[in-house]
Amino acid sequence: MVRVVVLGQGLVATHLMVGVERIKKGELEPIGVPLAKYEVEVPIEDIEFVASYDVDPGKVGKSVYDVAEEMLGSLLPVPATLKSVKVRRGIHAGSLKGLVEGARGLDEEAGMWGAVEAIAGELEELEPDVIINVITTEEARPYNTPQELVEALKKGEASASHAYAYATYLYMARTGRKVALVNGIPAPLANDKTILTLYERAGGLVFGDDGATGATPLTADLLEHLAERNRRVLSIAQFNIGGNMDFLALTLPEKNKMKEFTKSSVVEDILGYDAPHYIKPTGYLEPLGDKKFVSMHIWWKTFNGLEDELVVNMRINDSPALAGLLVDLIRISKSLLDRGYRGTVYEVNAFFMKKPGPPGSRNVARVIAYHNLLNMLRKLEIVRS
Amino acid sequence: MVRVVVLGQGLVATHLMVGVERIKKGELEPIGVPLAKYEVEVPIEDIEFVASYDVDPGKVGKSVYDVAEEMLGSLLPVPATLKSVKVRRGIHAGSLKGLVEGARGLDEEAGMWGAVEAIAGELEELEPDVIINVITTEEARPYNTPQELVEALKKGEASASHAYAYATYLYMARTGRKVALVNGIPAPLANDKTILTLYERAGGLVFGDDGATGATPLTADLLEHLAERNRRVLSIAQFNIGGNMDFLALTLPEKNKMKEFTKSSVVEDILGYDAPHYIKPTGYLEPLGDKKFVSMHIWWKTFNGLEDELVVNMRINDSPALAGLLVDLIRISKSLLDRGYRGTVYEVNAFFMKKPGPPGSRNVARVIAYHNLLNMLRKLEIVRS
Amino acid sequence: MVRVVVLGQGLVATHLMVGVERIKKGELEPIGVPLAKYEVEVPIEDIEFVASYDVDPGKVGKSVYDVAEEMLGSLLPVPATLKSVKVRRGIHAGSLKGLVEGARGLDEEAGMWGAVEAIAGELEELEPDVIINVITTEEARPYNTPQELVEALKKGEASASHAYAYATYLYMARTGRKVALVNGIPAPLANDKTILTLYERAGGLVFGDDGATGATPLTADLLEHLAERNRRVLSIAQFNIGGNMDFLALTLPEKNKMKEFTKSSVVEDILGYDAPHYIKPTGYLEPLGDKKFVSMHIWWKTFNGLEDELVVNMRINDSPALAGLLVDLIRISKSLLDRGYRGTVYEVNAFFMKKPGPPGSRNVARVIAYHNLLNMLRKLEIVRS
Amino acid sequence: MVRVVVLGQGLVATHLMVGVERIKKGELEPIGVPLAKYEVEVPIEDIEFVASYDVDPGKVGKSVYDVAEEMLGSLLPVPATLKSVKVRRGIHAGSLKGLVEGARGLDEEAGMWGAVEAIAGELEELEPDVIINVITTEEARPYNTPQELVEALKKGEASASHAYAYATYLYMARTGRKVALVNGIPAPLANDKTILTLYERAGGLVFGDDGATGATPLTADLLEHLAERNRRVLSIAQFNIGGNMDFLALTLPEKNKMKEFTKSSVVEDILGYDAPHYIKPTGYLEPLGDKKFVSMHIWWKTFNGLEDELVVNMRINDSPALAGLLVDLIRISKSLLDRGYRGTVYEVNAFFMKKPGPPGSRNVARVIAYHNLLNMLRKLEIVRS
Repeated sequence: MVRVVVLGQGLVATHLMVGVERIKKGELEPIGVPLAKYEVEVPIEDIEFVASYDVDPGKVGKSVYDVAEEMLGSLLPVPATLKSVKVRRGIHAGSLKGLVEGARGLDEEAGMWGAVEAIAGELEELEPDVIINVITTEEARPYNTPQELVEALKKGEASASHAYAYATYLYMARTGRKVALVNGIPAPLANDKTILTLYERAGGLVFGDDGATGATPLTADLLEHLAERNRRVLSIAQFNIGGNMDFLALTLPEKNKMKEFTKSSVVEDILGYDAPHYIKPTGYLEPLGDKKFVSMHIWWKTFNGLEDELVVNMRINDSPALAGLLVDLIRISKSLLDRGYRGTVYEVNAFFMKKPGPPGSRNVARVIAYHNLLNMLRKLEIVRS
Repeated sequence: MVRVVVLGQGLVATHLMVGVERIKKGELEPIGVPLAKYEVEVPIEDIEFVASYDVDPGKVGKSVYDVAEEMLGSLLPVPATLKSVKVRRGIHAGSLKGLVEGARGLDEEAGMWGAVEAIAGELEELEPDVIINVITTEEARPYNTPQELVEALKKGEASASHAYAYATYLYMARTGRKVALVNGIPAPLANDKTILTLYERAGGLVFGDDGATGATPLTADLLEHLAERNRRVLSIAQFNIGGNMDFLALTLPEKNKMKEFTKSSVVEDILGYDAPHYIKPTGYLEPLGDKKFVSMHIWWKTFNGLEDELVVNMRINDSPALAGLLVDLIRISKSLLDRGYRGTVYEVNAFFMKKPGPPGSRNVARVIAYHNLLNMLRKLEIVRS
Repeated sequence: MVRVVVLGQGLVATHLMVGVERIKKGELEPIGVPLAKYEVEVPIEDIEFVASYDVDPGKVGKSVYDVAEEMLGSLLPVPATLKSVKVRRGIHAGSLKGLVEGARGLDEEAGMWGAVEAIAGELEELEPDVIINVITTEEARPYNTPQELVEALKKGEASASHAYAYATYLYMARTGRKVALVNGIPAPLANDKTILTLYERAGGLVFGDDGATGATPLTADLLEHLAERNRRVLSIAQFNIGGNMDFLALTLPEKNKMKEFTKSSVVEDILGYDAPHYIKPTGYLEPLGDKKFVSMHIWWKTFNGLEDELVVNMRINDSPALAGLLVDLIRISKSLLDRGYRGTVYEVNAFFMKKPGPPGSRNVARVIAYHNLLNMLRKLEIVRS
Repeated sequence: MVRVVVLGQGLVATHLMVGVERIKKGELEPIGVPLAKYEVEVPIEDIEFVASYDVDPGKVGKSVYDVAEEMLGSLLPVPATLKSVKVRRGIHAGSLKGLVEGARGLDEEAGMWGAVEAIAGELEELEPDVIINVITTEEARPYNTPQELVEALKKGEASASHAYAYATYLYMARTGRKVALVNGIPAPLANDKTILTLYERAGGLVFGDDGATGATPLTADLLEHLAERNRRVLSIAQFNIGGNMDFLALTLPEKNKMKEFTKSSVVEDILGYDAPHYIKPTGYLEPLGDKKFVSMHIWWKTFNGLEDELVVNMRINDSPALAGLLVDLIRISKSLLDRGYRGTVYEVNAFFMKKPGPPGSRNVARVIAYHNLLNMLRKLEIVRS
């Protein structure tokens, strides 16, 4: 079994937990789980959710079943097995400020350091193998040294993601257990050398940052398509609009900047030159809900100096796409931990993440990343056939 | 030097010849030539066009310069070096019937077999290394044996493409010279085991069939993108409309069928199941000219049973895109002939062709095909760096 | 009350009947019913469905409730009030040949003339005020004289639409009752001067032809938008693909031609010149179901000789859109019959129909047609406020 | 003759002046000029440009010919007749701050009030009938009383548009001549009751605000299309991106707000309810130049509770579209002034402007506005046929 703790009981977490339980019951095919067409060492059936954390007063203290019923009940059957998983009070660090009325974390009571200690303690009891970070996009920055990070935590200035990451480190250091932290949001964790150093030391793994769903991985593949034909990209415009919490959060400028950063790096990494581009989450429009609208315009020079244009429009479900990836990330994490991997593994991040760590890593076209990853997993016999 | 003969002085041929001459003059960057960002054994400067063939009474007997001025003069400067290349009368086989008034080939005078002999004779004088087939899409079928092909030629029932291919074979057999025939249209040549056998025997190469430009290679990469995430494609609709001769030809039902065949095979090859699809050249609309409009709708199931949709619209120049690929096919052909390759080479076809030969070959995503090809070319030191 | 008989128990009829019954129950807002925001003389509550006709062996003899449950039960609650409406055997005239296995009409037993007489007889018992024709698109042509039509009926060569139209005429002539026949399909009824003469004579009304839903009315309004700015349209391409019976029918060439005719006339009527265009139902793709995909490219010259482009993509439910229009057509029909209107009324057709009758009528932008219609209905006090 | 002065020698002004002169020479058809298909009292040939104003150091002092050659010379032939029109130094009021290095107006030398007086003096010499305001979008607000406006001008706090408008008023008051000021930008002039009062008093006309080109009038007509079918709009998202000065200006937040205001009012005015929407100029992407990319998503409920979606993508030339409208605004202005109209005329604004004045006016669908305007112009015999 793989014991999983989820940070942030939002749509991604809820789709992940509902979807996995439905697959375990046999009522849902594992569509959207990349490796599900292969034989994978850890079957989906082995995934066990042991707890989640949130700071929304409408969720803390409830069962995941109750939260899921409210969020997805009109769309999907919610499995009763989620009644036994509780939403615990987590770390806030202001991550829901201006978004959710009355959000309160352990840090509001005990200070950030106190909250870190409390979470580390709870983990000793929960004994997770994998921790999934899917809290709302928050402002965050990497740290130069463990000391700097500890100071920021003591002053209450670190991000919630860093606080959770450090709590996880403490848990590993104190118990000797190994954990993989999968970071689905833009906060730099796999791109923070301090975090990598700590996890390396403790024998844990960090994967991140920012799950590669939505328009960015498609953009990467489209740009690779053009690059391979040596077409010269003249400009790229990409708009995103949606109605979920993530888009609401991005109406706050500092959070938007976090996202823009992970999205834009793709252009120069793949084309080899910085084609003029506008790639940003654009707006919040409540009725669109979790099914965002994406529009993209790419314009290039072809042979003999002529010009071509491409427009892509998508209406895509944001959260289930990431949830599907997380299913495999959980399974791969466990296998890699078991084989003694520590720190991070670029091949995993290159396919699954928008801003793959470790710091300084390049984005490659997802198709390439996929085949590299598959080769690695086959060599390690994590994937068979 | 690489001596090149072009069959069919249409837009593709004209873009190819004008573009290469402009690059040789230094007035055009080799944008749209896939390998131009690497060091390639045969530089573009080594390409020399020695003749072209056509059956359009408005072209036969003129210089390529004059034809190019008429076709592209308002868009591009036409290099004077093309004044010395003549358009010769080629083989018709009815390939322009219903499309061009008064089209006449050597076969209308001397019969098809006589035309084949005449072309074989002219090739002895032209001494080509590479022959590019970009005549208008025509109805054609593969042959079971050389005898069957020869009989069809004698009865005047073979396609123009087969007649040219056989003339090239005769030329090789008689002179001992090696030629690569690059087939840019849907007629099955690299998918005709008889042609492959003959070329194998004579030491020549055939690449084909149907140059992979336009919507099909992009569709391939988009489907690969979905397949790698294990999304279940529910349906695919793809429309194409344009105003060039190729679209006019496709209003004739038997030609349309040729195209549909090469386009559709991509779905099952890449997804692994035959998702319901409608992928056809759709219509002719004269004012669009060579810049066709493509619209594509793809619809799939994602994680947790939800559904996503993608729409792609493009306005793309049809002929220059293929011309850019042909530049590299000419260069690769020469290097492979020099290294003794004969028959066909799947790795080349897999990237450059819609329906890659030899018969029975699978379509793979272009990104994959590109990397496999690059690996091969690097190992052979045809491409460096 | 308005007594309504429906011809063709397909998706349009089923949406119409289910929707009206749901509105009558108060469980559905009258969204998609154009005049529902005004006070209309005949309230939706007054609509009463008395029977429907079909020739599909899977429908004839069942209740509309059972048919609707099968067709829409997974999408919508089907009101129990439809249990009392029966699907009767109608006239086939080969209209489902090649589409539905085992389709059989009264004409297969009693000949077409016998079937016409039988339907006329049943109408005496059903006493309809309005008859809605929404059978599958069939090949049909107008008739020069009543004699010619009668002969065609006797020889069994008329279309099912004409057979129903004549049966309705017989019913009116024999009983003195007035009926409005609303023709939602491309068969020329309101564009058939013979039918108009007969209905004029009998005091009935015919509205048609081909309900203006989908891409055509939008195209009309977009072209009007360009025409009013005096932009010069260079070309128009419009593709439609869907998975309902209507699209399946259009894979049969003679039916496709019927549709193309009603769709294309819009260009010259509105622009005042015949801009090059390709406007055709394009294909059948079963999984799309009733929610068709439409793609449209329009390209024009603007001030100072520059060029602009517009692409429209839609995913729209075909049948409910027409059903919503039919609700108002039923209501308007009754009011106009009561005021002594006979033959046809152009103002009604101009807004509601793709090919508005009487013969020789022009398409105008729908916005204009809407305002003209509203003015007329207000003057007649059919619409208030 | 109609003597015209243009404020702001940007792309719109340059297209207007070049286009009109080309039409006068007979080398360009009046495509994109709405009324050009009718006989209009004032022919295009009567338009005479007498001067323009700007504050860009790269333009002030040059001839319009020189400026046009630089801006459009690679696209279009620039008529020599523009050599005699000079670009004079105008009023800056900070309108190019952060956009053009070294911009300087008369106000930088003589203060704003001094600049107003200077312009008023120059107008006495130029004797314009029509003044076109197409300076870069600037922040501006309406004034409650003439006193308040005069004070703002004296303190140097008014917008450049208001300063020009007041200078024009002074000119009219002092000379008794009548002028029409056509405001093509979002600054509230036709929506400023103070300006209206002053012009009414002086016998002048103001038309505005913000020329109705681009996506907004099309959105208006699309929404009208849905409203007339009583469909319930669930959400509207509209993105705009371009590379001209107007888009660059909109990267400055206060200017963006001006635009958002004029664009958004259309939704409630036409639908009758405030459907959730995101309608904003989105970004600046230099290579797109004046040909902006627009993407729009509209989503609605249709009959029987089902949902439809529409996506519109456009690539359109921003400036020529407005220039074409201005040609007619100049002609209509002259005719209305001649007939004694003063203040503003809603019917004109309703078709030509995004935010039609006077204050409190509603947006109506452009198709409706067009027909109302045409009726008025025909009654006044300004338009014949």
